[in-house]
Amino acid sequence: MIEKNEMIFGARAVIEAIQAGKEIDKILVKKDIQSELSRELFAALKNTAVPVQRVPVERLNRITRKNHQGVIAFISPIVYQRTEDLVPFLFEQGKNPFFLMLDGVTDVRNFGAIARTCECAGVDAVIIPSKNSVSVNADAIKTSAGALHTLPVCRENSLTSTIKFLKESGFQIIAATEKGDYDYTKANYQNPVCIIMGAEDTGVSYDNLALCDEWVKIPLYGKIESLNVSVAAGVLIYEAVKQRHIEA
Amino acid sequence: MIEKNEMIFGARAVIEAIQAGKEIDKILVKKDIQSELSRELFAALKNTAVPVQRVPVERLNRITRKNHQGVIAFISPIVYQRTEDLVPFLFEQGKNPFFLMLDGVTDVRNFGAIARTCECAGVDAVIIPSKNSVSVNADAIKTSAGALHTLPVCRENSLTSTIKFLKESGFQIIAATEKGDYDYTKANYQNPVCIIMGAEDTGVSYDNLALCDEWVKIPLYGKIESLNVSVAAGVLIYEAVKQRHIEA
Repeated sequence: MIEKNEMIFGARAVIEAIQAGKEIDKILVKKDIQSELSRELFAALKNTAVPVQRVPVERLNRITRKNHQGVIAFISPIVYQRTEDLVPFLFEQGKNPFFLMLDGVTDVRNFGAIARTCECAGVDAVIIPSKNSVSVNADAIKTSAGALHTLPVCRENSLTSTIKFLKESGFQIIAATEKGDYDYTKANYQNPVCIIMGAEDTGVSYDNLALCDEWVKIPLYGKIESLNVSVAAGVLIYEAVKQRHIEA
Repeated sequence: MIEKNEMIFGARAVIEAIQAGKEIDKILVKKDIQSELSRELFAALKNTAVPVQRVPVERLNRITRKNHQGVIAFISPIVYQRTEDLVPFLFEQGKNPFFLMLDGVTDVRNFGAIARTCECAGVDAVIIPSKNSVSVNADAIKTSAGALHTLPVCRENSLTSTIKFLKESGFQIIAATEKGDYDYTKANYQNPVCIIMGAEDTGVSYDNLALCDEWVKIPLYGKIESLNVSVAAGVLIYEAVKQRHIEA
Protein backbone atom coordinates (compact mmCIF):
# COMPACT_ATOMS: atom_id res chain seq x y z
CA MET A 1 0.00 0.00 0.00
CA ILE A 2 1.12 3.52 -0.80
CA GLU A 3 1.01 5.69 2.31
CA LYS A 4 2.22 8.93 0.73
CA ASN A 5 0.25 10.18 -2.22
CA GLU A 6 2.32 9.73 -5.36
CA MET A 7 2.15 12.31 -8.12
CA ILE A 8 2.26 12.19 -11.90
CA PHE A 9 3.22 15.28 -13.92
CA GLY A 10 2.20 16.36 -17.40
CA ALA A 11 -0.91 15.70 -19.46
CA ARG A 12 0.61 12.85 -21.50
CA ALA A 13 1.76 10.91 -18.43
CA VAL A 14 -1.60 11.43 -16.72
CA ILE A 15 -3.51 10.24 -19.80
CA GLU A 16 -1.36 7.11 -19.87
CA ALA A 17 -2.01 6.50 -16.17
CA ILE A 18 -5.77 6.79 -16.71
CA GLN A 19 -5.61 4.43 -19.70
CA ALA A 20 -3.55 1.97 -17.67
CA GLY A 21 -6.35 1.93 -15.10
CA LYS A 22 -4.36 3.63 -12.30
CA GLU A 23 -6.59 4.88 -9.49
CA ILE A 24 -6.31 8.66 -9.42
CA ASP A 25 -7.34 10.61 -6.35
CA LYS A 26 -7.59 14.00 -8.04
CA ILE A 27 -6.10 16.07 -10.83
CA LEU A 28 -5.04 19.71 -10.67
CA VAL A 29 -4.89 21.58 -13.97
CA LYS A 30 -3.74 25.08 -14.77
CA LYS A 31 -6.79 27.38 -14.88
CA ASP A 32 -6.46 28.50 -18.50
CA ILE A 33 -5.07 25.28 -19.99
CA GLN A 34 -5.87 25.09 -23.71
CA SER A 35 -3.50 22.58 -25.33
CA GLU A 36 -4.46 19.73 -27.64
CA LEU A 37 -3.19 17.32 -24.99
CA SER A 38 -5.42 18.84 -22.34
CA ARG A 39 -8.45 18.20 -24.56
CA GLU A 40 -7.29 14.59 -24.85
CA LEU A 41 -6.99 14.48 -21.07
CA PHE A 42 -10.55 15.70 -20.53
CA ALA A 43 -11.79 13.13 -23.06
CA ALA A 44 -9.98 10.37 -21.17
CA LEU A 45 -11.58 11.54 -17.92
CA LYS A 46 -15.11 11.28 -19.27
CA ASN A 47 -17.18 8.71 -17.38
CA THR A 48 -14.64 8.49 -14.58
CA ALA A 49 -15.25 9.77 -11.04
CA VAL A 50 -11.88 11.52 -10.88
CA PRO A 51 -12.28 15.09 -9.60
CA VAL A 52 -10.50 17.84 -11.57
CA GLN A 53 -9.67 21.18 -9.98
CA ARG A 54 -8.65 24.22 -12.04
CA VAL A 55 -6.03 26.17 -10.10
CA PRO A 56 -3.63 29.09 -10.69
CA VAL A 57 -0.31 27.93 -12.16
CA GLU A 58 1.45 29.21 -9.01
CA ARG A 59 -0.23 26.47 -6.99
CA LEU A 60 1.16 23.82 -9.35
CA ASN A 61 4.60 25.44 -9.14
CA ARG A 62 4.47 25.24 -5.36
CA ILE A 63 3.73 21.51 -5.52
CA THR A 64 6.62 20.63 -7.83
CA ARG A 65 9.57 22.20 -9.59
CA LYS A 66 9.36 19.55 -12.29
CA ASN A 67 7.98 20.32 -15.73
CA HIS A 68 4.29 19.71 -14.99
CA GLN A 69 2.98 21.35 -18.21
CA GLY A 70 -0.10 22.50 -16.29
CA VAL A 71 -1.23 19.06 -15.09
CA ILE A 72 -0.57 17.20 -11.82
CA ALA A 73 -2.36 13.98 -10.86
CA PHE A 74 -2.33 12.46 -7.38
CA ILE A 75 -2.38 8.68 -7.35
CA SER A 76 -4.88 7.32 -4.85
CA PRO A 77 -3.54 5.14 -2.03
CA ILE A 78 -6.63 2.90 -2.38
CA VAL A 79 -8.77 1.54 -5.20
CA TYR A 80 -12.27 2.97 -5.00
CA GLN A 81 -15.23 0.71 -5.54
CA ARG A 82 -18.57 1.35 -7.24
CA THR A 83 -21.82 1.01 -5.32
CA GLU A 84 -23.43 -0.67 -8.32
CA ASP A 85 -20.86 -3.46 -8.21
CA LEU A 86 -20.73 -3.81 -4.45
CA VAL A 87 -24.48 -4.15 -3.80
CA PRO A 88 -25.08 -7.27 -5.93
CA PHE A 89 -21.83 -8.75 -4.59
CA LEU A 90 -23.00 -8.35 -0.98
CA PHE A 91 -26.47 -9.70 -1.73
CA GLU A 92 -24.95 -12.73 -3.46
CA GLN A 93 -22.95 -13.39 -0.31
CA GLY A 94 -26.18 -13.46 1.66
CA LYS A 95 -25.36 -10.24 3.50
CA ASN A 96 -27.75 -7.65 4.88
CA PRO A 97 -25.79 -4.60 3.71
CA PHE A 98 -25.12 -1.56 5.87
CA PHE A 99 -23.72 1.54 4.13
CA LEU A 100 -22.77 4.99 5.29
CA MET A 101 -22.86 7.90 2.84
CA LEU A 102 -20.99 11.17 3.47
CA ASP A 103 -22.66 14.01 1.60
CA GLY A 104 -20.01 16.74 1.49
CA VAL A 105 -17.89 16.01 4.55
CA THR A 106 -14.65 17.94 3.96
CA ASP A 107 -12.51 17.40 7.09
CA VAL A 108 -10.13 14.47 6.56
CA ARG A 109 -9.82 13.83 10.30
CA ASN A 110 -13.57 13.47 10.59
CA PHE A 111 -13.51 11.17 7.56
CA GLY A 112 -10.76 9.05 9.12
CA ALA A 113 -12.57 8.79 12.45
CA ILE A 114 -15.81 7.83 10.68
CA ALA A 115 -14.02 5.16 8.62
CA ARG A 116 -12.54 3.76 11.84
CA THR A 117 -16.01 3.57 13.40
CA CYS A 118 -17.35 1.89 10.25
CA GLU A 119 -14.64 -0.77 10.34
CA CYS A 120 -15.27 -1.42 14.05
CA ALA A 121 -19.04 -1.61 13.59
CA GLY A 122 -18.99 -3.89 10.55
CA VAL A 123 -20.31 -1.30 8.09
CA ASP A 124 -19.95 -2.73 4.56
CA ALA A 125 -18.89 0.44 2.74
CA VAL A 126 -18.58 4.21 2.91
CA ILE A 127 -19.88 6.18 -0.07
CA ILE A 128 -18.43 9.60 -0.90
CA PRO A 129 -19.01 11.95 -3.82
CA SER A 130 -16.18 12.74 -6.23
CA LYS A 131 -16.70 16.51 -5.86
CA ASN A 132 -16.55 18.80 -2.80
CA SER A 133 -15.65 15.97 -0.51
CA VAL A 134 -12.83 14.35 1.35
CA SER A 135 -11.02 11.60 -0.49
CA VAL A 136 -8.71 8.91 0.79
CA ASN A 137 -5.27 10.42 1.38
CA ALA A 138 -2.44 9.64 3.78
CA ASP A 139 -3.94 11.79 6.57
CA ALA A 140 -7.33 10.13 6.29
CA ILE A 141 -5.72 6.68 6.42
CA LYS A 142 -3.71 7.64 9.49
CA THR A 143 -6.72 9.03 11.37
CA SER A 144 -8.71 5.94 10.40
CA ALA A 145 -6.20 3.74 12.27
CA GLY A 146 -5.77 1.85 8.99
CA ALA A 147 -9.49 1.21 8.49
CA LEU A 148 -9.31 2.77 5.02
CA HIS A 149 -6.97 -0.02 3.92
CA THR A 150 -9.72 -2.61 4.34
CA LEU A 151 -13.07 -0.78 4.42
CA PRO A 152 -14.54 -0.49 0.90
CA VAL A 153 -14.94 3.15 -0.18
CA CYS A 154 -17.23 3.90 -3.12
CA ARG A 155 -16.67 7.19 -4.95
CA GLU A 156 -19.61 8.37 -7.03
CA ASN A 157 -20.17 11.20 -9.52
CA SER A 158 -23.75 11.63 -8.36
CA LEU A 159 -24.92 10.74 -4.87
CA THR A 160 -28.46 11.42 -6.05
CA SER A 161 -28.20 8.62 -8.63
CA THR A 162 -26.59 6.37 -6.04
CA ILE A 163 -29.43 6.97 -3.57
CA LYS A 164 -31.96 6.13 -6.30
CA PHE A 165 -30.03 2.95 -7.11
CA LEU A 166 -29.94 1.94 -3.44
CA LYS A 167 -33.67 2.54 -3.06
CA GLU A 168 -34.36 0.40 -6.12
CA SER A 169 -32.16 -2.28 -4.56
CA GLY A 170 -34.33 -2.34 -1.44
CA PHE A 171 -32.28 -0.16 0.89
CA GLN A 172 -33.85 2.00 3.59
CA ILE A 173 -32.29 5.46 3.27
CA ILE A 174 -32.01 7.30 6.56
CA ALA A 175 -30.72 10.88 6.64
CA ALA A 176 -29.34 12.47 9.79
CA THR A 177 -30.53 16.06 9.88
CA GLU A 178 -31.38 18.73 12.43
CA LYS A 179 -34.71 18.92 10.62
CA GLY A 180 -35.34 15.28 11.54
CA ASP A 181 -38.94 14.16 12.04
CA TYR A 182 -38.10 12.05 15.08
CA ASP A 183 -35.26 10.76 17.23
CA TYR A 184 -32.75 8.48 15.54
CA THR A 185 -33.70 5.61 17.86
CA LYS A 186 -37.18 5.45 16.32
CA ALA A 187 -35.94 4.46 12.86
CA ASN A 188 -35.57 0.85 11.79
CA TYR A 189 -32.04 -0.11 10.72
CA GLN A 190 -32.56 -3.87 10.56
CA ASN A 191 -32.90 -4.27 6.80
CA PRO A 192 -30.46 -3.18 4.09
CA VAL A 193 -29.78 0.38 5.14
CA CYS A 194 -27.80 3.45 4.12
CA ILE A 195 -27.32 6.22 6.68
CA ILE A 196 -26.48 9.64 5.18
CA MET A 197 -24.45 12.17 7.14
CA GLY A 198 -24.16 15.70 5.78
CA ALA A 199 -21.43 18.30 5.52
CA GLU A 200 -20.09 19.76 8.76
CA ASP A 201 -21.78 23.12 8.10
CA THR A 202 -24.69 22.67 5.73
CA GLY A 203 -25.81 19.09 6.41
CA VAL A 204 -27.26 16.72 3.82
CA SER A 205 -28.02 18.57 0.58
CA TYR A 206 -31.64 19.35 -0.11
CA ASP A 207 -31.89 17.26 -3.29
CA ASN A 208 -30.63 14.19 -1.47
CA LEU A 209 -32.75 14.79 1.64
CA ALA A 210 -35.83 14.81 -0.57
CA LEU A 211 -35.06 11.23 -1.70
CA CYS A 212 -34.55 9.77 1.78
CA ASP A 213 -37.09 7.48 3.43
CA GLU A 214 -36.57 8.86 6.92
CA TRP A 215 -35.16 12.03 8.44
CA VAL A 216 -33.85 11.43 11.92
CA LYS A 217 -32.29 13.73 14.48
CA ILE A 218 -30.06 13.30 17.47
CA PRO A 219 -31.63 15.11 20.42
CA LEU A 220 -29.63 18.09 21.71
CA TYR A 221 -30.10 19.57 25.15
CA GLY A 222 -27.47 22.32 25.18
CA LYS A 223 -26.80 25.56 23.33
CA ILE A 224 -24.47 24.16 20.67
CA GLU A 225 -26.47 23.36 17.57
CA SER A 226 -24.79 20.16 16.42
CA LEU A 227 -22.47 17.34 17.36
CA ASN A 228 -19.15 16.79 15.64
CA VAL A 229 -20.01 14.78 12.50
CA SER A 230 -17.78 11.84 13.45
CA VAL A 231 -19.46 11.61 16.87
CA ALA A 232 -22.93 11.89 15.31
CA ALA A 233 -22.04 9.15 12.81
CA GLY A 234 -20.85 6.95 15.69
CA VAL A 235 -24.11 7.43 17.60
CA LEU A 236 -26.23 6.48 14.57
CA ILE A 237 -24.01 3.60 13.47
CA TYR A 238 -24.13 2.05 16.94
CA GLU A 239 -27.91 2.44 17.15
CA ALA A 240 -28.00 0.42 13.92
CA VAL A 241 -25.54 -2.12 15.38
CA LYS A 242 -27.72 -2.43 18.44
CA GLN A 243 -30.82 -3.13 16.38
CA ARG A 244 -28.97 -5.53 14.07
CA HIS A 245 -26.88 -7.49 16.58
CA ILE A 246 -27.30 -6.75 20.25
CA GLU A 247 -31.03 -7.12 20.54
CA ALA A 248 -31.17 -10.10 18.18
CA MET B 1 -13.10 34.91 28.26
CA ILE B 2 -9.41 34.55 27.51
CA GLU B 3 -8.91 32.54 24.33
CA LYS B 4 -5.12 32.58 24.28
CA ASN B 5 -3.38 31.20 27.33
CA GLU B 6 -1.78 34.07 29.24
CA MET B 7 1.54 33.56 30.97
CA ILE B 8 3.10 34.80 34.20
CA PHE B 9 6.90 34.81 34.66
CA GLY B 10 9.00 34.46 37.79
CA ALA B 11 8.39 32.68 41.09
CA ARG B 12 7.31 35.83 42.98
CA ALA B 13 4.67 36.78 40.39
CA VAL B 14 3.36 33.21 40.23
CA ILE B 15 3.10 32.97 44.03
CA GLU B 16 1.12 36.22 44.03
CA ALA B 17 -1.20 34.90 41.31
CA ILE B 18 -1.85 31.73 43.32
CA GLN B 19 -2.52 33.75 46.47
CA ALA B 20 -4.87 36.02 44.53
CA GLY B 21 -6.86 32.92 43.51
CA LYS B 22 -6.00 33.10 39.80
CA GLU B 23 -6.82 29.86 37.98
CA ILE B 24 -3.54 28.38 36.74
CA ASP B 25 -3.54 25.77 34.01
CA LYS B 26 -0.01 24.53 34.63
CA ILE B 27 3.42 25.65 35.81
CA LEU B 28 6.75 24.90 34.18
CA VAL B 29 9.82 25.13 36.44
CA LYS B 30 13.50 24.78 35.62
CA LYS B 31 14.55 21.20 36.38
CA ASP B 32 17.16 21.98 39.04
CA ILE B 33 15.50 25.02 40.63
CA GLN B 34 16.69 25.46 44.23
CA SER B 35 15.99 29.05 45.28
CA GLU B 36 14.29 30.14 48.48
CA LEU B 37 11.46 31.56 46.35
CA SER B 38 10.94 28.24 44.61
CA ARG B 39 10.44 26.58 48.00
CA GLU B 40 7.85 29.25 48.77
CA LEU B 41 6.20 28.49 45.42
CA PHE B 42 5.93 24.76 46.14
CA ALA B 43 4.48 25.56 49.57
CA ALA B 44 1.85 27.80 47.95
CA LEU B 45 0.96 25.01 45.52
CA LYS B 46 0.25 22.49 48.27
CA ASN B 47 -3.38 21.35 48.25
CA THR B 48 -4.01 22.82 44.82
CA ALA B 49 -4.63 20.75 41.68
CA VAL B 50 -2.18 22.79 39.60
CA PRO B 51 0.18 20.50 37.66
CA VAL B 52 3.89 21.33 37.82
CA GLN B 53 6.31 20.11 35.17
CA ARG B 54 10.09 20.21 35.64
CA VAL B 55 11.71 21.01 32.29
CA PRO B 56 15.17 21.94 30.95
CA VAL B 57 15.82 25.68 31.11
CA GLU B 58 16.09 25.72 27.29
CA ARG B 59 12.39 24.97 27.05
CA LEU B 60 11.57 27.98 29.24
CA ASN B 61 13.88 30.13 27.12
CA ARG B 62 12.05 29.06 23.98
CA ILE B 63 8.72 30.14 25.49
CA THR B 64 9.84 33.63 26.49
CA ARG B 65 12.81 35.95 26.30
CA LYS B 66 11.65 37.72 29.43
CA ASN B 67 13.38 37.15 32.76
CA HIS B 68 11.44 34.07 33.88
CA GLN B 69 13.83 33.12 36.74
CA GLY B 70 13.06 29.47 36.09
CA VAL B 71 9.26 29.67 36.53
CA ILE B 72 6.48 30.14 33.96
CA ALA B 73 2.78 29.77 34.80
CA PHE B 74 0.01 29.50 32.23
CA ILE B 75 -3.24 31.12 33.27
CA SER B 76 -6.23 28.91 32.57
CA PRO B 77 -8.89 30.22 30.20
CA ILE B 78 -11.56 28.72 32.47
CA VAL B 79 -12.15 28.33 36.20
CA TYR B 80 -12.09 24.66 37.15
CA GLN B 81 -14.67 23.35 39.56
CA ARG B 82 -14.41 20.73 42.30
CA THR B 83 -16.53 17.60 42.17
CA GLU B 84 -17.11 17.86 45.92
CA ASP B 85 -18.74 21.27 45.49
CA LEU B 86 -20.66 20.47 42.34
CA VAL B 87 -22.36 17.27 43.51
CA PRO B 88 -24.25 18.79 46.48
CA PHE B 89 -25.09 21.84 44.34
CA LEU B 90 -26.70 19.62 41.67
CA PHE B 91 -28.57 17.52 44.21
CA GLU B 92 -29.91 20.67 45.88
CA GLN B 93 -31.24 21.77 42.50
CA GLY B 94 -33.15 18.50 42.26
CA LYS B 95 -30.99 17.22 39.40
CA ASN B 96 -30.15 13.64 38.55
CA PRO B 97 -26.45 14.22 37.82
CA PHE B 98 -24.63 12.79 34.82
CA PHE B 99 -20.82 13.06 34.82
CA LEU B 100 -18.12 11.98 32.41
CA MET B 101 -14.61 11.26 33.73
CA LEU B 102 -11.57 11.18 31.43
CA ASP B 103 -8.86 9.01 32.96
CA GLY B 104 -5.70 10.03 31.12
CA VAL B 105 -7.01 11.30 27.78
CA THR B 106 -4.13 13.32 26.30
CA ASP B 107 -5.31 14.48 22.85
CA VAL B 108 -6.81 17.98 23.09
CA ARG B 109 -8.89 17.47 19.95
CA ASN B 110 -10.48 14.38 21.46
CA PHE B 111 -11.08 16.33 24.66
CA GLY B 112 -12.70 19.17 22.73
CA ALA B 113 -14.95 16.82 20.76
CA ILE B 114 -15.97 15.02 23.97
CA ALA B 115 -16.76 18.32 25.68
CA ARG B 116 -18.91 19.30 22.69
CA THR B 117 -20.82 16.02 22.94
CA CYS B 118 -21.28 16.54 26.69
CA GLU B 119 -22.71 20.00 26.18
CA CYS B 120 -25.09 18.72 23.49
CA ALA B 121 -26.22 15.76 25.60
CA GLY B 122 -26.79 17.69 28.81
CA VAL B 123 -23.92 16.10 30.74
CA ASP B 124 -23.46 18.07 33.98
CA ALA B 125 -19.66 18.03 34.18
CA VAL B 126 -16.45 16.54 32.82
CA ILE B 127 -13.88 15.39 35.37
CA ILE B 128 -10.18 15.32 34.47
CA PRO B 129 -7.09 14.57 36.55
CA SER B 130 -4.51 17.28 37.14
CA LYS B 131 -1.63 15.04 35.99
CA ASN B 132 -1.00 13.26 32.67
CA SER B 133 -4.11 14.65 31.12
CA VAL B 134 -5.45 17.22 28.75
CA SER B 135 -6.41 20.53 30.30
CA VAL B 136 -8.53 23.35 28.97
CA ASN B 137 -6.46 25.40 26.54
CA ALA B 138 -7.31 27.46 23.47
CA ASP B 139 -7.18 24.43 21.12
CA ALA B 140 -9.49 22.39 23.32
CA ILE B 141 -11.97 25.28 23.49
CA LYS B 142 -11.90 25.67 19.72
CA THR B 143 -12.47 21.95 19.03
CA SER B 144 -15.26 21.96 21.62
CA ALA B 145 -17.17 24.54 19.55
CA GLY B 146 -17.20 26.69 22.68
CA ALA B 147 -18.66 23.99 24.93
CA LEU B 148 -15.77 24.42 27.37
CA HIS B 149 -16.93 27.98 28.06
CA THR B 150 -20.14 26.70 29.66
CA LEU B 151 -19.65 23.03 30.54
CA PRO B 152 -18.31 22.65 34.10
CA VAL B 153 -14.87 20.96 34.17
CA CYS B 154 -13.64 19.52 37.46
CA ARG B 155 -9.89 19.02 37.85
CA GLU B 156 -8.89 16.60 40.58
CA ASN B 157 -5.57 15.55 42.13
CA SER B 158 -6.81 12.00 42.60
CA LEU B 159 -9.45 10.43 40.39
CA THR B 160 -9.46 7.47 42.76
CA SER B 161 -10.61 9.70 45.64
CA THR B 162 -13.15 11.34 43.37
CA ILE B 163 -14.60 7.98 42.36
CA LYS B 164 -14.89 6.99 46.01
CA PHE B 165 -16.62 10.30 46.77
CA LEU B 166 -19.06 9.79 43.87
CA LYS B 167 -19.87 6.26 45.02
CA GLU B 168 -20.56 7.52 48.54
CA SER B 169 -22.82 10.15 47.00
CA GLY B 170 -24.91 7.47 45.33
CA PHE B 171 -23.46 7.55 41.82
CA GLN B 172 -23.32 4.46 39.60
CA ILE B 173 -19.76 4.29 38.20
CA ILE B 174 -19.57 2.75 34.74
CA ALA B 175 -16.19 2.19 33.10
CA ALA B 176 -15.81 1.75 29.36
CA THR B 177 -13.20 -0.92 28.79
CA GLU B 178 -12.32 -3.57 26.23
CA LYS B 179 -12.39 -5.97 29.19
CA GLY B 180 -16.06 -5.11 29.72
CA ASP B 181 -18.33 -7.76 31.18
CA TYR B 182 -21.18 -6.96 28.81
CA ASP B 183 -22.36 -4.58 26.11
CA TYR B 184 -22.76 -0.93 27.09
CA THR B 185 -26.51 -1.09 26.34
CA LYS B 186 -27.02 -3.52 29.23
CA ALA B 187 -25.96 -1.06 31.91
CA ASN B 188 -28.42 1.20 33.70
CA TYR B 189 -27.68 4.92 33.32
CA GLN B 190 -30.94 6.23 34.75
CA ASN B 191 -29.72 7.19 38.23
CA PRO B 192 -26.86 9.53 39.16
CA VAL B 193 -24.09 8.19 36.94
CA CYS B 194 -20.47 8.75 36.07
CA ILE B 195 -19.10 7.18 32.89
CA ILE B 196 -15.31 6.75 32.84
CA MET B 197 -13.40 6.76 29.54
CA GLY B 198 -9.74 5.78 29.58
CA ALA B 199 -6.59 6.99 27.87
CA GLU B 200 -6.38 6.54 24.09
CA ASP B 201 -3.78 3.76 24.44
CA THR B 202 -4.01 2.18 27.88
CA GLY B 203 -7.67 2.66 28.81
CA VAL B 204 -8.96 3.26 32.33
CA SER B 205 -6.20 2.70 34.89
CA TYR B 206 -6.35 -0.52 36.86
CA ASP B 207 -6.81 1.13 40.26
CA ASN B 208 -9.80 3.07 39.03
CA LEU B 209 -11.31 0.13 37.15
CA ALA B 210 -11.29 -1.85 40.38
CA LEU B 211 -13.55 0.74 42.01
CA CYS B 212 -16.18 0.85 39.25
CA ASP B 213 -19.61 -0.73 39.61
CA GLU B 214 -19.82 -1.90 36.02
CA TRP B 215 -17.38 -2.58 33.19
CA VAL B 216 -19.01 -2.19 29.82
CA LYS B 217 -17.73 -2.67 26.29
CA ILE B 218 -18.72 -1.41 22.89
CA PRO B 219 -18.98 -4.42 20.57
CA LEU B 220 -16.42 -4.46 17.75
CA TYR B 221 -16.83 -6.50 14.58
CA GLY B 222 -13.71 -5.55 12.63
CA LYS B 223 -9.97 -5.93 12.99
CA ILE B 224 -9.25 -2.56 14.62
CA GLU B 225 -9.19 -3.00 18.38
CA SER B 226 -10.86 0.20 19.52
CA LEU B 227 -12.94 3.17 18.51
CA ASN B 228 -11.62 6.71 18.67
CA VAL B 229 -12.19 7.79 22.29
CA SER B 230 -14.41 10.74 21.34
CA VAL B 231 -16.63 8.47 19.22
CA ALA B 232 -16.76 5.85 22.00
CA ALA B 233 -17.70 8.56 24.51
CA GLY B 234 -20.46 9.74 22.16
CA VAL B 235 -21.90 6.23 21.83
CA LEU B 236 -22.02 5.73 25.62
CA ILE B 237 -23.28 9.23 26.39
CA TYR B 238 -26.15 8.85 23.94
CA GLU B 239 -27.08 5.43 25.30
CA ALA B 240 -27.40 7.17 28.67
CA VAL B 241 -29.41 9.99 27.06
CA LYS B 242 -31.71 7.43 25.51
CA GLN B 243 -32.35 5.72 28.83
CA ARG B 244 -32.78 9.03 30.65
CA HIS B 245 -34.89 10.97 28.16
CA ILE B 246 -36.01 9.25 25.01
CA GLU B 247 -37.61 6.19 26.51
CA ALA B 248 -39.18 8.10 29.40
